[in-house]
Amino acid sequence: MSTTNETSRKKLVNALNEELRNNSSATILFHQSIANKLGLNPTDHKCLEVILKNQPITAGELAEITGLTTGTITGVINRLEGAGYAFRDNDPQDKRRVIISVNQDKAKEEIVPLFSSFSGEIYKMLSEYTDQELQLILDFIKSSNRVLLEMKERMSNTY
Amino acid sequence: MSTTNETSRKKLVNALNEELRNNSSATILFHQSIANKLGLNPTDHKCLEVILKNQPITAGELAEITGLTTGTITGVINRLEGAGYAFRDNDPQDKRRVIISVNQDKAKEEIVPLFSSFSGEIYKMLSEYTDQELQLILDFIKSSNRVLLEMKERMSNTY
Repeated sequence: MSTTNETSRKKLVNALNEELRNNSSATILFHQSIANKLGLNPTDHKCLEVILKNQPITAGELAEITGLTTGTITGVINRLEGAGYAFRDNDPQDKRRVIISVNQDKAKEEIVPLFSSFSGEIYKMLSEYTDQELQLILDFIKSSNRVLLEMKERMSNTY
Repeated sequence: MSTTNETSRKKLVNALNEELRNNSSATILFHQSIANKLGLNPTDHKCLEVILKNQPITAGELAEITGLTTGTITGVINRLEGAGYAFRDNDPQDKRRVIISVNQDKAKEEIVPLFSSFSGEIYKMLSEYTDQELQLILDFIKSSNRVLLEMKERMSNTY
């Protein structure tokens, strides 16, 4: 971790910071364009992913996992239900409990194709790295995710 | 780029793919929580960043840079104007041209503090890497950004 040139290090850190910012813009705009196709917004679309991974799930559980307020979550579920991607139902185990499930057929038919060429491009890109390089990148992305989630938590608690 | 163990390589690639997916979720949810504080959605907030970098800018130019439809952009500008973060004005050089500018004071006062501790965490994280490692990560993030933007372009053109 020794640096021969202070200035070039600074330039590198700033360049990376700038590219990470561009990355968050590109991610949001990419998901916005997907969400547009589906008649949803990026948050709805990401919540759909969370429901898919955790279904059946209650609105409260979805709020907890995503860190969104229950008010926001109600709007999200209304839009997902309106667009036919998810539906509310009574829990057969406990009739007073409302659970949310994904309309698998519709999700598979309309969403998977939008992502398949994207996955292909990502796999192609990863093939150009050695195992050791991939491990370094994996650790970096994990650390970034930790920071993002911590900041989100802090934001929900302090402001 | 030689691999001694096919299976461990596959595991590594899948783990990275999964973390990249988590990264896009974390990015969107983090920006959603910021946007919530500001009374905006993540796309509005990102468009505000684009306006800030390119102002004065027309709605058409904003649509071109972001790849969003002019219909979406109109909604974005309405919300940004409604919340007081940006405003429409006649171009003093050409009265028929409407330009969008950012309300600098409000943006600085309310948005910068939300990001400052985030930047601090990112700089702290980057300090743990050597220059060579940072260069590798920088190249990877640049490639990811290229893929994201290409996919967004393709989506706007083909679907």
